[in-house]
Amino acid sequence: MKICRYDDNRLGVIVGDTVRDVTAALDVIPLQRYPLPRHDLLIAHLDAVRARIEALMSNASEKPLAQVRLLAPVANPGKIVAAPVNYRKHLDEARDDAGIHHQNAVLEIQKVGLFLKATSSLVGPSEGVAIEHPERRNDHEVELVAVIAKAGRNIRPEEALSHVAGYAIGLDMTTRGPEERSLRKSIDSYSVVGPWLVTADEIADPASLDLALDVNGEPRQRANTRDLIIGLPELIAFASSFYSLQPGDLLFTGTPEGVGPVKAEDEISAEIGGIGCMRVKVRSARS
Amino acid sequence: MKICRYDDNRLGVIVGDTVRDVTAALDVIPLQRYPLPRHDLLIAHLDAVRARIEALMSNASEKPLAQVRLLAPVANPGKIVAAPVNYRKHLDEARDDAGIHHQNAVLEIQKVGLFLKATSSLVGPSEGVAIEHPERRNDHEVELVAVIAKAGRNIRPEEALSHVAGYAIGLDMTTRGPEERSLRKSIDSYSVVGPWLVTADEIADPASLDLALDVNGEPRQRANTRDLIIGLPELIAFASSFYSLQPGDLLFTGTPEGVGPVKAEDEISAEIGGIGCMRVKVRSARS
Repeated sequence: MKICRYDDNRLGVIVGDTVRDVTAALDVIPLQRYPLPRHDLLIAHLDAVRARIEALMSNASEKPLAQVRLLAPVANPGKIVAAPVNYRKHLDEARDDAGIHHQNAVLEIQKVGLFLKATSSLVGPSEGVAIEHPERRNDHEVELVAVIAKAGRNIRPEEALSHVAGYAIGLDMTTRGPEERSLRKSIDSYSVVGPWLVTADEIADPASLDLALDVNGEPRQRANTRDLIIGLPELIAFASSFYSLQPGDLLFTGTPEGVGPVKAEDEISAEIGGIGCMRVKVRSARS
Repeated sequence: MKICRYDDNRLGVIVGDTVRDVTAALDVIPLQRYPLPRHDLLIAHLDAVRARIEALMSNASEKPLAQVRLLAPVANPGKIVAAPVNYRKHLDEARDDAGIHHQNAVLEIQKVGLFLKATSSLVGPSEGVAIEHPERRNDHEVELVAVIAKAGRNIRPEEALSHVAGYAIGLDMTTRGPEERSLRKSIDSYSVVGPWLVTADEIADPASLDLALDVNGEPRQRANTRDLIIGLPELIAFASSFYSLQPGDLLFTGTPEGVGPVKAEDEISAEIGGIGCMRVKVRSARS
């Protein structure tokens, strides 16, 4: 099932080129009193929401997909975890290009581990990317994003995929510079996730998905998740050896070679096999 | 006003050695429907909560402070932002000690910028610290924590303190190693904040507060916030030049010299002038 959030926080299911409005399924999520849970409630209640969606589908109203504003499919991730330099050819290009490495050593993921992106940086594709520091290089990085299904610590690789609720496309937008990744990659709108959540049952093998990213129709990134240095199960195991994972946590799995700059007025198109395609407009944050 | 969260999510006010139960003041915070706000509701509604607290105080029941379990005074920070090596003498000790720098260059805060800690690492003093990787060095770092009052972007230093709701003591617990800070400092329970929130009106000058940390009664860290390399107003301005700050965001301002290891069974005592003192027990995460 392809589940989206759209327009004014409506819940939808993608059927061909249309979105079926199943917002009423959110009624299964209880009202919350302070203090709030530190995880995403849609994902935590996904089984109940899906059951309600099934009951609503036949009478749901439809809208053409082209006419909706797509939001991030996960509204309240407790954390956004991301893997640096997790494709061999991207490691090579980062070490070769001073505009990427910025005089910092580019270390392999086995040494650097994982980094965090601020949840305040999260947007959906229709919200676009706002360039905050145009005097610096601001790069696109397309990535497979796994959405964590349930709480877990010290998860073993062989059980890791059972902790995945689904998948989405992620843009790990990056301002180049000397600072740590958790700052440069956390600018508002620099974590684009969409176009929807594809539930895990629809992705037979997350380790064989084609990725593609174009800017203004020009091909920039082409790769396949089989070339990840550390695969998704091992990433989940590694992350959960440091901190507990929670329902709705987002795991950006790393970007392949071909990263490059974007500027205001550009349009990014990102596609992952089995998930879909999303278009994201770039603008200036200062206009 | 010193506002605490304690026991089973009760709200209290510190009066001498007692806690007055003002939990009913939380009723001014509206119930929430999915999607939830990405900021802390107690801080976002602090003015209304305080007004309700004032009305409740005279009839509030009391409990000795020594008998309550203190939780983190901010339950739902959208992000935890932290300053690395922000005291000159700590920069010197980090560069001198391979057990701290771990073969990585220790750069000044002007270059590294700020890093993030996972909100899943947040606990209150009574919850204690659980050492996850005892084979590594795990250090205490006492810090002044500022709690952000309201949404802001590109905040100017001269208006920055008006964006602070209050202050608390923070322990930026740290596992040493080669990985980026946002991983090593985000282990569950590695962000201790307490013992309560002191509202900003009670701290005349956050740039002249004594800090002290002892382990098992032995003095380890002694400093004053006047020795910060980058002061609080400039930290807020810098952070907000990258991402928007939200009500309840926590800003750890950096630790002074004297960091050192702790192990299971240790007890940390941390004190900041004008705020108070908190005791935090260390245990193994694996027992």
